[in-house]
Amino acid sequence: MKLLYPTSLVLDPKLLEGFSVDLVPYDVKKQIPDEHADAEVLVTWTNSPDNLKHAASNLKQLKWIQSLAAGPNDVLSAGFSPSTTTITTGSGLHDHTVAEHTMALLLLSARKLHSMRDHQLKGKWPGHLGGPQPDRPKDSFTTLRDANVVVWGFGNIARTLAPLLTALGAKVTGVARSKRIVDGVEVYGEDALKDLLPKTDALVMILPGSDATKHALNAERLKLLPKHAWVVNVGRGTSIDEDALADAVEQGRIGGAALDVFEKEPLPEGHRFWGIENVVVSPHAAGGRPQGAEGLIAENLRRFRAGQELKNVI
Amino acid sequence: MKLLYPTSLVLDPKLLEGFSVDLVPYDVKKQIPDEHADAEVLVTWTNSPDNLKHAASNLKQLKWIQSLAAGPNDVLSAGFSPSTTTITTGSGLHDHTVAEHTMALLLLSARKLHSMRDHQLKGKWPGHLGGPQPDRPKDSFTTLRDANVVVWGFGNIARTLAPLLTALGAKVTGVARSKRIVDGVEVYGEDALKDLLPKTDALVMILPGSDATKHALNAERLKLLPKHAWVVNVGRGTSIDEDALADAVEQGRIGGAALDVFEKEPLPEGHRFWGIENVVVSPHAAGGRPQGAEGLIAENLRRFRAGQELKNVI
Repeated sequence: MKLLYPTSLVLDPKLLEGFSVDLVPYDVKKQIPDEHADAEVLVTWTNSPDNLKHAASNLKQLKWIQSLAAGPNDVLSAGFSPSTTTITTGSGLHDHTVAEHTMALLLLSARKLHSMRDHQLKGKWPGHLGGPQPDRPKDSFTTLRDANVVVWGFGNIARTLAPLLTALGAKVTGVARSKRIVDGVEVYGEDALKDLLPKTDALVMILPGSDATKHALNAERLKLLPKHAWVVNVGRGTSIDEDALADAVEQGRIGGAALDVFEKEPLPEGHRFWGIENVVVSPHAAGGRPQGAEGLIAENLRRFRAGQELKNVI
Repeated sequence: MKLLYPTSLVLDPKLLEGFSVDLVPYDVKKQIPDEHADAEVLVTWTNSPDNLKHAASNLKQLKWIQSLAAGPNDVLSAGFSPSTTTITTGSGLHDHTVAEHTMALLLLSARKLHSMRDHQLKGKWPGHLGGPQPDRPKDSFTTLRDANVVVWGFGNIARTLAPLLTALGAKVTGVARSKRIVDGVEVYGEDALKDLLPKTDALVMILPGSDATKHALNAERLKLLPKHAWVVNVGRGTSIDEDALADAVEQGRIGGAALDVFEKEPLPEGHRFWGIENVVVSPHAAGGRPQGAEGLIAENLRRFRAGQELKNVI
């Protein structure tokens, strides 16, 4: 049995040994050589569309694709046969790095680091952002301490993020498809948004991209947020109605938005977001660095060999 | 007995009741009225130099000044008699807010949010900072996870900061005047800097301003830092030789610096720091918002009434 692993990231194949499987590295930007057309397992990371398309028609014995991406749209659209090939995602490999970037964007928003930078580039001391300040004045977002942070989309990333927020004194509430309590955090259904949004200081969006989440944050819901609230999106750009968001920030109906994802990436030239002071553009930088991939592959390889259900099946 | 408390911040005098003390509010920007010249206790926060100078000569019965600042240089230089007036600081009231700002600057540095902003202002997508990235490549500072963070100056603020860093996966080491272990963090004496600095990814300076700390980070010590290291200063500007730091960043001998304090504040027009891409200027914004002041004042008032030693005596 043969497993092909990508050379597009640093993987230690020693951590995949012990399963009587041939471990073969391959170049994700080229077609997989015919001598490896007998592979049963394909691990993918940043593969070229041509590589995937070629693999879909050439790897006749392929039974399982382990993507290292959280949302492997590239694999799903490449033409692999869903009846014979199981696809598993890299969900969990990006939790820490996305949570860290979320913290970075939230702290930037609270401490107005973007505005400090704007002043710096003009050689101007932003005195109004420093020196003696009121502590946690009402109707403001100047610190995470005691801030109401609503995390919409409450999977692995949110579970990694929540204790970091709590450590800084934030009050974390979750929103997801179903009501439950996760690691001590109250997670509400989306019907609760109408009550939660008006009390929100920072709204963190970690929704996956799908028809169901398209424009989840729309004009109507944006109207429920208080004037000082910030929106941070590290999920998928399609979950926000970008024009409605740009309107809300420009018109001062919310405090601002720090966005790592967009409906179109790279963000097109001339897009409204570039020029709005309180919109912060981050270039899909939150994830993109799978951590602990060998552990996930090895665990799924063990399950595969044992005939057990794989983790992260789509 | 009379205590004067400032109206320059929101204080709840109810939390100071119970000591048979007259609690009188006063305006820190005006001279204290003669009718209150009998005050024995003065609480200060952002007082004008004239207010303090006038108080030093008029409050003849003054026994104790409780400043809410961490480093009350204003009170020290106002001419109060050290033989009859005890001065206590607001040490501890700024720990959380300074630690939070430090996290903000560290995460900005690791995630290069300043550079993203520079690109945004030019309408350019900084693709090199997003998308698939190598995970924790050697000789880089791209995340706090597994980063060696050295905190120089290990008092209350560092103790609040260290667990936040640890929660994000950083390896924290302290440097202070004497070697010890604080809340599980190894704190070394300054003689260890020659061994620690070459392995440092981020150096956080939280040194107080004094003759002893003047230019503690000088050209010689900057040379010990690796090429990718960032310096974050939230202590006092005088603890860094600013020209040596500007040289090091400009010449690419270190990664960059995120600075909240400067030798002269506001940072003078035309200062080199304004124009260096990898220097980030924050306008002394880390602290400036005392938190829990009533608790400190009440505890010291209790001690004062009981004839016990006060907290935070200079």
